[in-house]
Amino acid sequence: MDQAQIYEKAVELVAKARGKLEVCCKVGASNLEELSIAYTPGVAAPTRAVAADKSLQYQYTSRATMLAIVTDGTAVLGLGDVGPEAAMVVMEGKGVMLKHFAGADPVPLCLNTTDSDEIVRLIKHIEPSFGFIFLEDIAAPRCFEIERRLNEELNIPVFHDDQHGTAIAACAGLKNVARLSGKDLSSCRVVISGAGASALATANLLFELGVKDISMADSKGMLARGRTDLNSYKKSIVERSCAAEYKDLADALRGADIFIGLSRPGLVTQAMVASMAPDPVIFAMANPDPEIMPEDSLAAGAKYIGTGRFDYPNCVNNLLAFPGIVKGAMQVRAKHITMAMKLAAVDAIAQYVTDEQLCENYLLPNPLDMALPAAVAEAVAAAAQR
Amino acid sequence: MDQAQIYEKAVELVAKARGKLEVCCKVGASNLEELSIAYTPGVAAPTRAVAADKSLQYQYTSRATMLAIVTDGTAVLGLGDVGPEAAMVVMEGKGVMLKHFAGADPVPLCLNTTDSDEIVRLIKHIEPSFGFIFLEDIAAPRCFEIERRLNEELNIPVFHDDQHGTAIAACAGLKNVARLSGKDLSSCRVVISGAGASALATANLLFELGVKDISMADSKGMLARGRTDLNSYKKSIVERSCAAEYKDLADALRGADIFIGLSRPGLVTQAMVASMAPDPVIFAMANPDPEIMPEDSLAAGAKYIGTGRFDYPNCVNNLLAFPGIVKGAMQVRAKHITMAMKLAAVDAIAQYVTDEQLCENYLLPNPLDMALPAAVAEAVAAAAQR
Repeated sequence: MDQAQIYEKAVELVAKARGKLEVCCKVGASNLEELSIAYTPGVAAPTRAVAADKSLQYQYTSRATMLAIVTDGTAVLGLGDVGPEAAMVVMEGKGVMLKHFAGADPVPLCLNTTDSDEIVRLIKHIEPSFGFIFLEDIAAPRCFEIERRLNEELNIPVFHDDQHGTAIAACAGLKNVARLSGKDLSSCRVVISGAGASALATANLLFELGVKDISMADSKGMLARGRTDLNSYKKSIVERSCAAEYKDLADALRGADIFIGLSRPGLVTQAMVASMAPDPVIFAMANPDPEIMPEDSLAAGAKYIGTGRFDYPNCVNNLLAFPGIVKGAMQVRAKHITMAMKLAAVDAIAQYVTDEQLCENYLLPNPLDMALPAAVAEAVAAAAQR
Repeated sequence: MDQAQIYEKAVELVAKARGKLEVCCKVGASNLEELSIAYTPGVAAPTRAVAADKSLQYQYTSRATMLAIVTDGTAVLGLGDVGPEAAMVVMEGKGVMLKHFAGADPVPLCLNTTDSDEIVRLIKHIEPSFGFIFLEDIAAPRCFEIERRLNEELNIPVFHDDQHGTAIAACAGLKNVARLSGKDLSSCRVVISGAGASALATANLLFELGVKDISMADSKGMLARGRTDLNSYKKSIVERSCAAEYKDLADALRGADIFIGLSRPGLVTQAMVASMAPDPVIFAMANPDPEIMPEDSLAAGAKYIGTGRFDYPNCVNNLLAFPGIVKGAMQVRAKHITMAMKLAAVDAIAQYVTDEQLCENYLLPNPLDMALPAAVAEAVAAAAQR
């Protein structure tokens, strides 16, 4: 199917099914006996038990698997600020992934406020109904503050997938490049195009992996100490990095080892790829159209390529990460998603590719492999419990 | 099964199933093609369509059937202020009813705030994800203000079942008493024990049906002009009613035609029933144990009896009303639940009992009759569209 056909079928599908999610009963209510047990008067007994011991809520209700997908619709896919009504289409799609790959019970909550205080307050108020808060498609830099505050104030895990899902997948891919090539990531020069949620999270996770030299570009050019228009999150990357200053993306890429694209289609030329250090890595993850197409990268001398797409090798997609993170955190009822859990996910995804499988065309697992989330979950759960 | 067995099975059931509700997928995600259509890149097409025309959200997402059951856990069943964690057990039970009888997709939202402003603000913010707001087990008088403000500020229906579900069921029962007996409700003297959400709503709906003489008692005695401790909702009943003043419930019941109990077990004695006007109506709806047991009422001279229980004839239960209201309002995408819709529900429930069926032991339909919600929904939808 080409893209036009996929689009057509996608509209047909939601129009026919009227959306993608429904709420179903795990118990019967077809006769008086079932009703007496599931509803009144039976319901009083488990209710009294939970009132006396709140921890029983995880056993007597579906809270353990209930997950709120919260968005304000301001940074939806490549579409931008489409609003909460349209965002619900995407949240239901994400919900399908979360059910299918993580076994969660996803509830889309599309909010008609973009006020960080309001969003934080609302999520705090709904905490007793959910085991996990999955933040999605909230524009940077508000998404950082919202996630930070919720992490401080909630006792259930909060995960902003646009940041960490992509960051974890990209880092797992780079770890396997290092494993395959013998490259030492800590001495690699990394250039990131884009400075939104996923790009900033990827840079920060790369620092955790020991990378030191990261150059980053937003839509106005290279992030640099001299710029007065940077938010504190962008500033922090410049401050943590030992990178030299470059005048533009082409200048930065000259002699660089790794390119990570989380920006816009077509920003990278074959000449730029050719100007990089030998055997360069090109993870061009703009979706659906990457910064440079893989075949063009390879022709210009790239050795390791990746995209966010399912139809090329090395799919650097958050689908590699978020199901296992959610599953693992919910399994052990973690209170937070810690850096140790994210790093455990990076390792688990990288190690899922065996030495025998590992090659230029197989840097990362197949994101549709149904056994991957369980493997990632196991590592994440173990990290949570340490 | 006796009550102890039901309680035991109710705990077993939720412990085994881990709650009663789950979120399921209406579309597949098992292979690359399905995933491309349900999620990325396909999802962009319906998302763009809804962004361009918000009304398409009802066709392309599950919003049309998504219903939030919102509670703060302050007035749960007969259990009182059990908190949001324990309330979730009941909300899931109610969710099972809403799925089974109304075809809605119910999402329990149990809030850890009891502040009316916060609750109103939160519900306004989640409006874009839902087709219906079902308020449940919020203590009076806050429930009245919350419902009123939401009705003013939302463009989707809001329904507080504890008030209106019970009121509609009770009024349908009384209409059929009138139909069977020839009693004229407008000249009947009605005594209501209880002055909480359901009792106040029942009194107000009875006024709409033409009843004029309503006496009401709360836990401190008869509502009366002289009392300085009444909230505005209780005051309004005293002001609308033409009832004389009585010193207590026994005094009020002497010569009364209709007793409605929405209070506590055992408040009514056989002597009180015997003191009422000929052929009195005793709807003793405290749950699970009524103000007076039906057999005791009948022995003392009651002609028409009803309880909230499924194991006696004439089950005056909100289950008669709320599935049809929800179904009807969602079918035609009503913006509000109007008085006309509530009165249409009263009539539809009463008329569902045929002339041939109608008798002392069959004043109301069987609440488990799966065809009843459709009949009520039809009437409610028609009223909404008028």
